[in-house]
Amino acid sequence: MKKTNLFFILIFTTNFLFAEDGYRLWPRYDKISNTALLNKYKTAVVNPFVLGESATIQVLKQELTNALSGLSGMNVVCNNSTISAAPLIFGIASNPGFIKNFSDKINLTEIIGDGYAINSVNIQGKKRIIVAAKTDIGLLYGAFRFLSHLQTHQSIETLNIVTSPLLKLRMLNHWDNLDRTVERGYAGFSLWDWHKLPVYIDNRYLDYARANASIGINAVALTNVNANATVLTKPYLEKVKALANVFRPYGIKVFLTARFSAPVEIGRLKTADPLDDAVQNWWNDKAKEIYSLIPDFGGFVVKANSEGQPGPQNYNRNHADGANMMAGAVAPYNGIIIWRAFVYSNENPEDRHMQAYKEFIALDGKFKSNVMVQVKNGAIDFQPREPFHPLFGAMPKTPLMMEFQITQEYLGQATNLVYLAPLFKECLESDTYAKGKGSTVSKIIDGSIHPYSLTGMTGVANIGNDINWCGHPFAQSNWYALGRLAWNHKLSSEQIADEWLRMTYSNNESFLNAASKMMMQSREITVQYSTPIGLHHLMNTGHHYGPAPWVSNLSRPEWNPVYYHKADSIGIGFNRTATGSNALGQYFPETRKLWEDQNTCEEKNLLWFHHVSWNYKMKNGKTLWDELCYQYYTGAERVKNMQQVWNGLKEFMDTERFEQIKMLLQIQYNEAIWWRNACLLYFQTFSKLPIPAKYEQPDITLEYYKSLRFPYAPGN
Amino acid sequence: MKKTNLFFILIFTTNFLFAEDGYRLWPRYDKISNTALLNKYKTAVVNPFVLGESATIQVLKQELTNALSGLSGMNVVCNNSTISAAPLIFGIASNPGFIKNFSDKINLTEIIGDGYAINSVNIQGKKRIIVAAKTDIGLLYGAFRFLSHLQTHQSIETLNIVTSPLLKLRMLNHWDNLDRTVERGYAGFSLWDWHKLPVYIDNRYLDYARANASIGINAVALTNVNANATVLTKPYLEKVKALANVFRPYGIKVFLTARFSAPVEIGRLKTADPLDDAVQNWWNDKAKEIYSLIPDFGGFVVKANSEGQPGPQNYNRNHADGANMMAGAVAPYNGIIIWRAFVYSNENPEDRHMQAYKEFIALDGKFKSNVMVQVKNGAIDFQPREPFHPLFGAMPKTPLMMEFQITQEYLGQATNLVYLAPLFKECLESDTYAKGKGSTVSKIIDGSIHPYSLTGMTGVANIGNDINWCGHPFAQSNWYALGRLAWNHKLSSEQIADEWLRMTYSNNESFLNAASKMMMQSREITVQYSTPIGLHHLMNTGHHYGPAPWVSNLSRPEWNPVYYHKADSIGIGFNRTATGSNALGQYFPETRKLWEDQNTCEEKNLLWFHHVSWNYKMKNGKTLWDELCYQYYTGAERVKNMQQVWNGLKEFMDTERFEQIKMLLQIQYNEAIWWRNACLLYFQTFSKLPIPAKYEQPDITLEYYKSLRFPYAPGN
Repeated sequence: MKKTNLFFILIFTTNFLFAEDGYRLWPRYDKISNTALLNKYKTAVVNPFVLGESATIQVLKQELTNALSGLSGMNVVCNNSTISAAPLIFGIASNPGFIKNFSDKINLTEIIGDGYAINSVNIQGKKRIIVAAKTDIGLLYGAFRFLSHLQTHQSIETLNIVTSPLLKLRMLNHWDNLDRTVERGYAGFSLWDWHKLPVYIDNRYLDYARANASIGINAVALTNVNANATVLTKPYLEKVKALANVFRPYGIKVFLTARFSAPVEIGRLKTADPLDDAVQNWWNDKAKEIYSLIPDFGGFVVKANSEGQPGPQNYNRNHADGANMMAGAVAPYNGIIIWRAFVYSNENPEDRHMQAYKEFIALDGKFKSNVMVQVKNGAIDFQPREPFHPLFGAMPKTPLMMEFQITQEYLGQATNLVYLAPLFKECLESDTYAKGKGSTVSKIIDGSIHPYSLTGMTGVANIGNDINWCGHPFAQSNWYALGRLAWNHKLSSEQIADEWLRMTYSNNESFLNAASKMMMQSREITVQYSTPIGLHHLMNTGHHYGPAPWVSNLSRPEWNPVYYHKADSIGIGFNRTATGSNALGQYFPETRKLWEDQNTCEEKNLLWFHHVSWNYKMKNGKTLWDELCYQYYTGAERVKNMQQVWNGLKEFMDTERFEQIKMLLQIQYNEAIWWRNACLLYFQTFSKLPIPAKYEQPDITLEYYKSLRFPYAPGN
Repeated sequence: MKKTNLFFILIFTTNFLFAEDGYRLWPRYDKISNTALLNKYKTAVVNPFVLGESATIQVLKQELTNALSGLSGMNVVCNNSTISAAPLIFGIASNPGFIKNFSDKINLTEIIGDGYAINSVNIQGKKRIIVAAKTDIGLLYGAFRFLSHLQTHQSIETLNIVTSPLLKLRMLNHWDNLDRTVERGYAGFSLWDWHKLPVYIDNRYLDYARANASIGINAVALTNVNANATVLTKPYLEKVKALANVFRPYGIKVFLTARFSAPVEIGRLKTADPLDDAVQNWWNDKAKEIYSLIPDFGGFVVKANSEGQPGPQNYNRNHADGANMMAGAVAPYNGIIIWRAFVYSNENPEDRHMQAYKEFIALDGKFKSNVMVQVKNGAIDFQPREPFHPLFGAMPKTPLMMEFQITQEYLGQATNLVYLAPLFKECLESDTYAKGKGSTVSKIIDGSIHPYSLTGMTGVANIGNDINWCGHPFAQSNWYALGRLAWNHKLSSEQIADEWLRMTYSNNESFLNAASKMMMQSREITVQYSTPIGLHHLMNTGHHYGPAPWVSNLSRPEWNPVYYHKADSIGIGFNRTATGSNALGQYFPETRKLWEDQNTCEEKNLLWFHHVSWNYKMKNGKTLWDELCYQYYTGAERVKNMQQVWNGLKEFMDTERFEQIKMLLQIQYNEAIWWRNACLLYFQTFSKLPIPAKYEQPDITLEYYKSLRFPYAPGN
């Protein structure tokens, strides 16, 4: 009785007093058990001195005393009197006390914006640690960083850190609806309890802000890009104001999604034409109203003329007309407009891959200076692997904001362990060749190739009201990774995984070696069992849960998986070369050339750009069909391997999280088999080739897989 | 800046390490701080001896060691060797070890079913506490009861307790949909994460089962009475099985709601006619399938021919035909059918109050022996105050199950502090006069008036996935009260409040005096500011949030508030006497007589049964209009008083819960003012009388209140 066993494992190991429920994320401050280390830390952190008085500084002090008390086991309180004796000092450069005592000892010239420095210095023969910044928020970031050094058991003997954010806007986009459903949300429902706002302030709002500040996230769009104008009405703006008040001390600005047709829907105008004066005035008044409530309101995120959303094209205007009209409304208050480039049309027979580029490229230079264009990492839609979007590098006069998806819409949703930093990094390190070799996507978005005055990265959030925030305990690492990379895209995936694992689970090296390796492989494994060799968009309809490569009957051609894989008796893949859709023509010549030639195109992208015959010889000598079988089988097998690795890590953590992840890995394995069998059995109807005999043959029919229905799958 | 202050209160008092988030409900086992008491307990609880080995006994042991370790601060483990030395022993009567050692010392004859006894005995000069039962589940109940004695700081010197449940079925009805929305749910979304079941077992399922077992709840219907046939399909039954496996050791049976038309919807039959053999066979097969997965499956809860749900009347059959057909299917497995009497028809012009009685009274004696008819406490729908349902006492041959609503659909939902035990008790203690004076509703449902072979009480659950389970911290008390009253309806509301407050908050007498008084008044206060003097069904449409007595345009006449209050230039109220609808004719003569005469009818029920002129003289000499004003104003004023009382209780608890409740009381006050103003301004349009000058006059217009819209109010 397998179930019964699991039941008893859970029952007999849960500490009912304080269960480890995953709520605490990575800012957790349990007492350090390594005594030698603890003693070193204790002398360094006793009675820290914090200069300043602002709301942010108060938040910093509270975090510091809680954290240091927890980590050290002492009752740490902030020292308010004797700066000269304190071994640990926090202050911003303009603070008189800081100037008096330390301005000659710390070089702050390298700090930019909300950056910070952490230095070990010797003053009058006494070792001291000084955390310094130019802004209060920078100091808060420095405090979190200092704490993470203790959490991750780093030496604090010779600290010499200076770091500043490489991107100005480090953001989360919540696709949360006002009824608390979350589009592509797999961790319960929306955090925002709109009904009880503005009076009731859920403690989670605070802990959400803390977690964000700890990784440098400084902006959040609260609402779904498929927007609802109701959020712009007075009662809802009062609720938004209450959230903004909570987030402000943590340096987080609030954005809202703006429904383009709001002037009609809630403003009683007859049109939303961006060139109509009444429309411009309506948005001007609306901005004025919002800023009177929320003086530091960030601005609007807009999805327009995309997947049924209204937009300027409804009035024969273009995206720049729409964006600039809104930009005018928020400009007096230093607000910005983030206009999404995720557009494609069912009336346009052209390869969906090419449509956003075509719509936007002509508008470069036409946007007002407070407009950013937000571009998804790839041209289709957050696939497990996707070549970088051709717009990166192609719009020198338009600040492009990176849009990644943290919520795993196409990567196993909340039941699969998939660490996304390698996916993010793969895109960021891709070379656009916009200004010759080395013009990576990261250098595009951080403004070092084209001098963008606005820079940013956003992640579509994976956060819901599940107690552990993200559904899968490991999904927390993707929230963490997005924040860390938005701050510094040069960080390696390994380092980010290591930090997160240490803070969230354990500093034990055996644990770290195994768990980190598992994380680092996980995305590639998911690609293998779902969409290997450049396949894409094979998922089921609507909820996008599980495989359905056979779907061909949806009203819009580009919603059907068959549109993308184009399997036939000859072979499989989407020819995007000059002999096909010529989507490759949108890339710079070096990139185009690399991908256009089947011999130079990396095999991981092969079927993305080429229709390849079933018996095409891969570099390893296998036929394409055999390689496809190899990838699907290997991917599933590697999930089984992850299960075995995980089972060996029981000793390193609480039973609750260990068992949760164990159960989730079982689901992942079941789903990997499902993907493998369903895809291979279906593609086999074209290839007419056998699955190599060495593999365990599917024992379930294609018809069975086709018959599966999930009417209540989440996130739809 | 009020908001900012609140923010800082929250920030600077939250212990980020382990916040008091309300998750632990009442089975919380923090160390007892009263040293004298602690020392007494310590000697009594060290190394308890538990006889038995079943899954339930293992659960008992785990709860016991966790609880006693927590409460005592010692590391308590169960003694497995020396029963003769143990000061605390748990065993069931049939256990050989129990027979050998204690059968002559404990009298178990008074224990019935899953009851238990707790006795302090002297054996060979040594004081010992023996918890005994006839069943493992009874022993688990006894263990929880023993623990509650420690939690509530009772003396355990001279224990002499014997108690057995007065009702066999002690149940929760979850109105949870498969998409995790909850009809009339105000605490987030459904606990049941159907998508991840059956593989992923959320820890909450265990804690839910623990909480239920601790108060004797032994049955749960997982799904909404507005049923979805999909839950009866194979994939969902596997999920239900997983939940049943978790609940089984805690003595909890699982029920499902059965959609009457399921044979058509998922069985591909052309009819769901209960007298059709194919239909009977389909249900027989379905029952067989379910019981093969869940051998102790409880049975089906059915809402049929009510508010649009399909039922036997679609085929010109009656409720007994439908119920008996299903009862036949589950009878071989000892399953039961719980058939709801909540029916009314928009084609029937008769007073809605009378329709259920009329439909069911003729069927008394027609139901199979494994059918219960589930009757709401009142004839309309869970109003803040409602006279008991005329069916109680009127069906001597049909076991009637009590249906209360724990979720506060009409009592402020999850933002108002309303303790419901007084409402439950008011109904239970009402005299039906079915067999002369003293034939209370409680004696009807417990089978002491009519010899029912099945007895039970259910509560429509107020549980969701909010971290604190019920939205409002005090709403937990209503879950607790339902369980306690289902076990023993003779318990007083005061005692239940006292137990719950002590376990959940504090044993401090000052705290208890104030908080208990607040709870005990709270339901009456809500009646005063929403539906005083027998008014009912004045709420807004659909979501039922807030007042809308003016609504008159809904398609079904009995959905409109005007149908119920019948305010006109003469007066207000529903004449249900012989000169009106004669709903009173359905009650036994003594009751009818009491309520039919305006002079003997309690004023709290006056407008429920009578249309009364605006200048009718109340017993206190006020006119009806002035009394109405007095009630509404007093109710709102008393909420302000609750706020003041609460503010004085800060010292007795953690800041998190204190502040949460403080914010919620502010919402409650705002809503009380809203109810007061909206109702009085509206009724004033009929009475044409002034609100007495001594009261602060409404500063908001009736038109404003009428204009309010809440498109995303929860639970709809």
